[in-house]
Amino acid sequence: MTRGQEPIEKLIELLARLPGLGPRSARRAALHLVRKRDLLLAPLAEAMAEVARSVRPCLECGNLSTAERCAICADPRRDAAQICVVQDVADLWAMERSSAYRGRYHVLGGLLNALDGTGPEELGLPRLAERVREGVSEVILALPATIDGQTTAHYVADILPEGVQATSLAQGVPVGGELDFLDDGTIGAALRARRSL
Amino acid sequence: MTRGQEPIEKLIELLARLPGLGPRSARRAALHLVRKRDLLLAPLAEAMAEVARSVRPCLECGNLSTAERCAICADPRRDAAQICVVQDVADLWAMERSSAYRGRYHVLGGLLNALDGTGPEELGLPRLAERVREGVSEVILALPATIDGQTTAHYVADILPEGVQATSLAQGVPVGGELDFLDDGTIGAALRARRSL
Repeated sequence: MTRGQEPIEKLIELLARLPGLGPRSARRAALHLVRKRDLLLAPLAEAMAEVARSVRPCLECGNLSTAERCAICADPRRDAAQICVVQDVADLWAMERSSAYRGRYHVLGGLLNALDGTGPEELGLPRLAERVREGVSEVILALPATIDGQTTAHYVADILPEGVQATSLAQGVPVGGELDFLDDGTIGAALRARRSL
Repeated sequence: MTRGQEPIEKLIELLARLPGLGPRSARRAALHLVRKRDLLLAPLAEAMAEVARSVRPCLECGNLSTAERCAICADPRRDAAQICVVQDVADLWAMERSSAYRGRYHVLGGLLNALDGTGPEELGLPRLAERVREGVSEVILALPATIDGQTTAHYVADILPEGVQATSLAQGVPVGGELDFLDDGTIGAALRARRSL
């Protein structure tokens, strides 16, 4: 380490731990930040400090928020009878961007996995079961189509009280997707779930 | 913007302005940061604030440092008779990683370019000419092999006082490089500059 460069080397080392950045792009990002000290570096330092200070998981659903209950859980216009179960906050954001869903959420923060020891407790499933008992009629399992995702979906469906419907997102051809670029499994699923026009 | 998520949306917006990150990877990075609040988010906020506070360009060469004169300019063991001219600090760091150079530097912070109005003043060339007059015998032009890079190299070579040697890095096959993957220009340059064993 060169004397007088410790702060910038520390910055590069930390930036390199972000997903999508390696040592080389972290160096590039650090230099970019120093060049844009007032426009980017100082505001970013402040934004990070602010997030560290104020953003917490919503006590109800696990979404990120500055409030104890996030804006979705606190919004009386959102349908409290529907809960959409997602793996993490990025999936919640993706659902919200679609503007297609008006119910509430439950963020697992992971998936059931015996190997790395992620069990029902870690995913807040007892809390979900409790929420469902308070007048929920449908639980939408918007989980990845992987083995862990489907294991988790089946587990959640099994712990739901009788009378609560468990559903999952439809599988099929993405809007704007070309058949030629789709995998066989997706085409098969789309064919089996075909609808009359 | 969703109420209660303003700080994290602000953070994503700023992260997306880093080179190498787009809106999608900025979202992923922001979530990663929130998950690693104590290990990464808080230290990164502090590291950025520290760099914004303490790191400045060296008054002599333009390298980044917490001191007015960087460690290289202040080191009496570095040869003051050699100045290596580089485009920016990343190039200086690359030269230093090679441990092959024991002289001093001059960081231009750009290249001459008539279109975007980058002239000799912006690159600190008058200051370089002044430094050269103080006992420098060789100026190594380690500038990119682009039109702007070579224009700048020739300009710098022209303003050097008589008796000061202008040199450039050798062009040729990278160490460990396979001929099959090299462009024709590099192979041609390496052939013309061939040496006897």
